[in-house]
Amino acid sequence: MERKEISQAVIGRLPRYYRYLGELRDEGVERISSQELSRKMQVTASQIRQDLNHFGGFGQQGYGYNVEYLYVEIAKILGLDKEHYLILIGAGNLGQALLNYNNFARRGFIFKGIFDKNPELHGTKIRDIEIRPMEEISNFVKDNNIDIAVLTIPKNGAIKVAETLVACNIKAIWNFAHVDLNVPESVQVENVHLSDSLMKLSYNSSRYQGMKNEGQKAGD
Amino acid sequence: MERKEISQAVIGRLPRYYRYLGELRDEGVERISSQELSRKMQVTASQIRQDLNHFGGFGQQGYGYNVEYLYVEIAKILGLDKEHYLILIGAGNLGQALLNYNNFARRGFIFKGIFDKNPELHGTKIRDIEIRPMEEISNFVKDNNIDIAVLTIPKNGAIKVAETLVACNIKAIWNFAHVDLNVPESVQVENVHLSDSLMKLSYNSSRYQGMKNEGQKAGD
Repeated sequence: MERKEISQAVIGRLPRYYRYLGELRDEGVERISSQELSRKMQVTASQIRQDLNHFGGFGQQGYGYNVEYLYVEIAKILGLDKEHYLILIGAGNLGQALLNYNNFARRGFIFKGIFDKNPELHGTKIRDIEIRPMEEISNFVKDNNIDIAVLTIPKNGAIKVAETLVACNIKAIWNFAHVDLNVPESVQVENVHLSDSLMKLSYNSSRYQGMKNEGQKAGD
Repeated sequence: MERKEISQAVIGRLPRYYRYLGELRDEGVERISSQELSRKMQVTASQIRQDLNHFGGFGQQGYGYNVEYLYVEIAKILGLDKEHYLILIGAGNLGQALLNYNNFARRGFIFKGIFDKNPELHGTKIRDIEIRPMEEISNFVKDNNIDIAVLTIPKNGAIKVAETLVACNIKAIWNFAHVDLNVPESVQVENVHLSDSLMKLSYNSSRYQGMKNEGQKAGD
């Protein structure tokens, strides 16, 4: 099937469709109208139709969407029909939290190796995966078909590690270090900047309180 | 100063300006043109001017931006000039990782309490903060001026906990549980859905590999 270029905004919404469709499927729901899905997901039915139209004719007038079909198709689009091999760089609490997410393995994201600069950790295991020295990253990536490197190290080390990863042709970096990585466009980067997310929450909360107070004053 | 309503897209970019300005300030840079900032941040100078215009006349033609002033103003806008009191709900690896981020405290986000449903943890401490039973959330929030609840529990428990938090007038929820919370608009929610982020990376990586392969075939 021919697919048009899809905006990052639409891509960003696909995992959420996938999650809701997975829940519907688990509940035994076979089909759903865009109106029902709209009510559940709290987005407009027209946005749902537009988003899902990018992927060809899943919906049928008067019938709605076939939940199982749409779930499987979105999984394929997201690359979840294949296994992805991951390495974790940084075996701290955040790294361990990610290793312990059962959902990742269930969706085909398999951790193959762990790297940390702390020599005391080398040779020890988390979830049966050995922790190795940073110097072994390059060979490990090449020898084990690693697709994705997960960076859970402080920002100072991250830029150098990213250079190593680029040099051994990694395909993707999931970056939790609080720094923007400059990599060639052949390497996909997805940033999770936790401080930024917390500051955005802080802004919205302060802003709302401010509006409420103004509203109260106006009402005096 | 009168401020216009600002879109979430602009708000989402503010923490990144804040980060870059903080780095410039630490390097002793006093002023910077939108062109220089544009090169550093890899966004267009026109976007920088538009974004920062929302907050009034920080820039001056031919002079550029005063780094310190802009840094302090953005901090105020983000609510970083005040302290925020947080509770953590869920003392697993992810929760512990968040407790250990020194950056949060440095920016005024102070963890005051930790809650977990595991009775074996009650009374033990992480970073000098006692872990308490979930039943105490409500009184603790009221007695300690808690602004933000950080939810690092599995999705099943999250909806019920969110109801408790709404009932005790929490202002904001930083939600790491893989579920959308339905809360009144007086409660701000910022979601960090890690699986969604990983799937987006998987999509972009698969998509790029697909394009590369097509390109190679076309070149045969």
